[in-house]
Amino acid sequence: MFVILKSDVENREIEKFLTGLKKTYNADARLVVKNDKKIIVIFENNLKIDVGLLKSFDFVDYIDDSGELMGLVSRFFKSDDTMISIGNKIVGEGNFCVISGPCSVESEQQIYAIAKRIKMAGCGLLRGGAFKPRTSPYSFQGLRRRGIELLLEVKRAIGLCVVSELTDLKYLDLFSDIDVIQVGARNMQNFEMLRQLGRCDKPIILKRGISNTIREWLLSAEYILSGGNDNVILCERGIRTYEPLTRNTLDISAIPMVKKISHLPIIIDPSHATGRKWMVAPLSKAAVVAGADGVMIEVHNSPSRALSDGKQSLDLDEFDNLMKNIKALVKFSKKII
Amino acid sequence: MFVILKSDVENREIEKFLTGLKKTYNADARLVVKNDKKIIVIFENNLKIDVGLLKSFDFVDYIDDSGELMGLVSRFFKSDDTMISIGNKIVGEGNFCVISGPCSVESEQQIYAIAKRIKMAGCGLLRGGAFKPRTSPYSFQGLRRRGIELLLEVKRAIGLCVVSELTDLKYLDLFSDIDVIQVGARNMQNFEMLRQLGRCDKPIILKRGISNTIREWLLSAEYILSGGNDNVILCERGIRTYEPLTRNTLDISAIPMVKKISHLPIIIDPSHATGRKWMVAPLSKAAVVAGADGVMIEVHNSPSRALSDGKQSLDLDEFDNLMKNIKALVKFSKKII
Amino acid sequence: MFVILKSDVENREIEKFLTGLKKTYNADARLVVKNDKKIIVIFENNLKIDVGLLKSFDFVDYIDDSGELMGLVSRFFKSDDTMISIGNKIVGEGNFCVISGPCSVESEQQIYAIAKRIKMAGCGLLRGGAFKPRTSPYSFQGLRRRGIELLLEVKRAIGLCVVSELTDLKYLDLFSDIDVIQVGARNMQNFEMLRQLGRCDKPIILKRGISNTIREWLLSAEYILSGGNDNVILCERGIRTYEPLTRNTLDISAIPMVKKISHLPIIIDPSHATGRKWMVAPLSKAAVVAGADGVMIEVHNSPSRALSDGKQSLDLDEFDNLMKNIKALVKFSKKII
Amino acid sequence: MFVILKSDVENREIEKFLTGLKKTYNADARLVVKNDKKIIVIFENNLKIDVGLLKSFDFVDYIDDSGELMGLVSRFFKSDDTMISIGNKIVGEGNFCVISGPCSVESEQQIYAIAKRIKMAGCGLLRGGAFKPRTSPYSFQGLRRRGIELLLEVKRAIGLCVVSELTDLKYLDLFSDIDVIQVGARNMQNFEMLRQLGRCDKPIILKRGISNTIREWLLSAEYILSGGNDNVILCERGIRTYEPLTRNTLDISAIPMVKKISHLPIIIDPSHATGRKWMVAPLSKAAVVAGADGVMIEVHNSPSRALSDGKQSLDLDEFDNLMKNIKALVKFSKKII
Repeated sequence: MFVILKSDVENREIEKFLTGLKKTYNADARLVVKNDKKIIVIFENNLKIDVGLLKSFDFVDYIDDSGELMGLVSRFFKSDDTMISIGNKIVGEGNFCVISGPCSVESEQQIYAIAKRIKMAGCGLLRGGAFKPRTSPYSFQGLRRRGIELLLEVKRAIGLCVVSELTDLKYLDLFSDIDVIQVGARNMQNFEMLRQLGRCDKPIILKRGISNTIREWLLSAEYILSGGNDNVILCERGIRTYEPLTRNTLDISAIPMVKKISHLPIIIDPSHATGRKWMVAPLSKAAVVAGADGVMIEVHNSPSRALSDGKQSLDLDEFDNLMKNIKALVKFSKKII
Repeated sequence: MFVILKSDVENREIEKFLTGLKKTYNADARLVVKNDKKIIVIFENNLKIDVGLLKSFDFVDYIDDSGELMGLVSRFFKSDDTMISIGNKIVGEGNFCVISGPCSVESEQQIYAIAKRIKMAGCGLLRGGAFKPRTSPYSFQGLRRRGIELLLEVKRAIGLCVVSELTDLKYLDLFSDIDVIQVGARNMQNFEMLRQLGRCDKPIILKRGISNTIREWLLSAEYILSGGNDNVILCERGIRTYEPLTRNTLDISAIPMVKKISHLPIIIDPSHATGRKWMVAPLSKAAVVAGADGVMIEVHNSPSRALSDGKQSLDLDEFDNLMKNIKALVKFSKKII
Repeated sequence: MFVILKSDVENREIEKFLTGLKKTYNADARLVVKNDKKIIVIFENNLKIDVGLLKSFDFVDYIDDSGELMGLVSRFFKSDDTMISIGNKIVGEGNFCVISGPCSVESEQQIYAIAKRIKMAGCGLLRGGAFKPRTSPYSFQGLRRRGIELLLEVKRAIGLCVVSELTDLKYLDLFSDIDVIQVGARNMQNFEMLRQLGRCDKPIILKRGISNTIREWLLSAEYILSGGNDNVILCERGIRTYEPLTRNTLDISAIPMVKKISHLPIIIDPSHATGRKWMVAPLSKAAVVAGADGVMIEVHNSPSRALSDGKQSLDLDEFDNLMKNIKALVKFSKKII
Repeated sequence: MFVILKSDVENREIEKFLTGLKKTYNADARLVVKNDKKIIVIFENNLKIDVGLLKSFDFVDYIDDSGELMGLVSRFFKSDDTMISIGNKIVGEGNFCVISGPCSVESEQQIYAIAKRIKMAGCGLLRGGAFKPRTSPYSFQGLRRRGIELLLEVKRAIGLCVVSELTDLKYLDLFSDIDVIQVGARNMQNFEMLRQLGRCDKPIILKRGISNTIREWLLSAEYILSGGNDNVILCERGIRTYEPLTRNTLDISAIPMVKKISHLPIIIDPSHATGRKWMVAPLSKAAVVAGADGVMIEVHNSPSRALSDGKQSLDLDEFDNLMKNIKALVKFSKKII
């Protein structure tokens, strides 16, 4: 629940109000000042709050209990675009960021081969899965701890920032030197995880669940922001529809929609969205001109031998070629890559 | 069912084979020669065809009974892109076509005001609905006959090609001077209509049904092509998903997928797909770089007073601006507009 | 648009009001008296109606322009359940009706064999497709005229009511002795057809489109009712979802939802919904206890040799067995079969 | 990957084979004997297994690498229905189980009031959420630890088995006296959690994710079974579709489909599926006759004051009434309740 205060409210009134909320309703609440507005954000507890009572305070302008405002993720709370630094790159308005690498870290040889080439191609962010969520318990589940170690070795040796997916909070300690934590589509509503990630200051890539609405997705980001971590990058990766020719359906409209509602950057993952490598180039280009802040691309040194998702991975030459095309279009769009 | 013949088959063998099919199975069948292949296309009847028997003929290479080949719409049957002439414009590879106009023709004043401005902006194709399929019987159903007359008046007076939707075969005579017939999403599987349109030689815009697969869509086009009319333009207009923030979800992946499977041109309708005018520009640009052959855009001289779909219509100035942006991107993509 | 009048409105006021609507807005409008309410139903035309002006009349209670009321199909307009007579059977509250027969009429021998057995099993309504809408132009399209003739022969010879699908208005004359006209899922929004069927007095089975909402479905029924034909039976036949193990997903919730909103009877087609014959029995039983007014079941004398949809057809013994199970459950539910 | 062995394989051959798999591919593998078949189940690792090599062993019958067999959850591995004991109730074939209680445990007074009445009505299993996954961070998140304590108090005082949802592994210790652990829809693919639950011997209710296929759902159950815990109860709770009138769409077909593929029991949650209390009775009855092994029903002593999901909760009298109806139908269906 959001209580929007009048601009002339005094600080001692706010403090008293917060104390009252705690005492009467056992409700955690905090003051947020954004866009020159003073807003009290209330985390509801097991006692129903009397909205009529709150409204009766002189310094209360109005109360939003509808969920329409969304909260800290919204432009209502912050009109300027959020810019997130990762190494020497910026993710956010005016920039276009390419994150690439294999679905899974498979071996030292593999991850080095890929890392060198994507760096040469001008991509500063390496992704690689160590803990892999797999539909079947019998499928390769990732190198796990060893995968994280390899990513960190390659980070130091080659000088790239690294992105990897966290699948359970118990592994969080392993991610202390990982630059960006990815929350996968299946964990988009793992609220315990989101809450915990709200307490760290690392950039988080929050993938959209395969069947989640944009509103639910932004509210999952809100879990992170309301915990104190503003560095959330949204990643659209295709939604589940009835169409069988593509793995999922890339929701390209999510780009302008998210940009309108929220100040957070949004990137696109055309590899997982379609499951087909030959679709990666046209959809990456579409993402650039539709206003996305970046793309996440699967690249493998030998796609046909990949232990997961080989069909959707570009090989190294194809990635080189894609980077050239993306760069030209980003330049045309007057953004920096 | 498709019977692919060996290259050295003789004409009299083919003739005998066709006669036999008619006699034995009461099946209509015809020879198609495409991509240097000779293929017998069989329209099945109420007698089950004995595939084993057909295979036993010496000159039969193999038989496709799986539906995988799709048929005349596929690149297997014709590898070169289909190019369709509408007035002095070409729809198809290397070209980018913009079709624009109001959802409904509402009055003489309205359609003239719009037609003049879109022509000035460099758009040669005017769309306007006369027969409107509306969810409720109480909503405005279009000017009907009078709407077609107004389109034809404006065509003659201003010199634009005109596109309008056919909702029932009984109105077909009225469309003799309409340049392009549109089959709406709700009629994508009106097979009686498709069959009839296969017997005319006018270009047909075939909209994808809101919940139809790409395969079903191409098979609906196959109804038209198998009747003898090759001039089909596919139009993706958004599919129905669970996401409530957009009217439908534009399936941008349909562009590269259709291009891979089929030689037919494909255009995008971002206005109906999203139901939101401010999404038209980013999605039109995405369509250009993803490889679409054109876009269909709703424009109204006074969107707030439109009798249908006002929220998704650009006003005339917005359309001017969009055309500039599209032209620049089409030029960058080395296509002709 | 609906104008709900105050109960003390005088007839001459109503007449004057209707005349005014015609004159000022060229709008067709008519008075409907249902549930002791007097309501003016307005079919909108190309002139925007000034709602404020209409509201200013003394005898106007309120105006519904939101579409929430739905109209003649709704319980707001008619609280009692609609009962429809077909031969000596009643479709509607307190009764349970079974319609069965083959997907397609294939031959004289086939339709007689099936008709005799379903009659013996206590089923009085035979369905059989003559005009078949098929995804591919090369698939068997039905016996067409000859199929209708066979149905009518069997009707006279065996004494069953017959149901068949109309795919285009140009065939309507052929259906004059067919007892019930079926509008297929693909034609649910063929508004020209619905409007025409509103002018006949035959019972219409209106199948739900595979991706249509319940609201859209009821508004399609409204096209028929607003034309003057109240005899509409709704048929839920599965909706399109992402689940691949069933052909479509039977929306069992549609039964109580339709019953709440509308007075029209609703039946279930488990054969098309699932595409699997072994699901027909459990889903038919579910339909009985969830409150459906009937089921439509595919039966074939030799499912493995059926020209269409064999996998979902019961054979004659399986149908006998199903009828026994349904009868017991209908009796338990205190309905008449 | 499953390696199906010939029936005359000797034990020392199997041991050697398992050792070889470990040595050559670092693959965990184990022997499963079910339905008189000996099958080696292989958990794949980062080395690609040479299927051709495995096939060359004399005692190997065939290898299933397609995922079609599903695994331990399937009837191929175990043909008899799994029966699960909870207190003095059995869940599984021939029995029908009703689980009921509030969405959230809210207070001592609330949970006692509900528990007493559902016990009197003949329901032996109380559900109550302590850790609540909520879309918005500002909504009531459950009483958490205190909620679990209250459930355990009521269990001891009134003598009911209790079911509650686990949202993160770190709370697992709190659940040691909870009789049944529920995995919510949002955690259906939280594979770390599933793996851990495979190592305990408590019954697990595994809800289907709102957009997961039946195959994915069964493979999530496979994570639990492959860890050694066979006590999995599947719970269908509605899938996400385009229909807005119900919260989700109850997939009633999942009952016969799961029963055909798997030996695990399946129950239905009509409260969450529809979000509407007046739909609970018809859909519960449909579940009984469609072959479900039980239902999970939301009940609240004062639905209008519930802190979550009040609209879908029955009040205590309505629940009494529903129990009577269910009992009669279960008896008619010759099952025990």
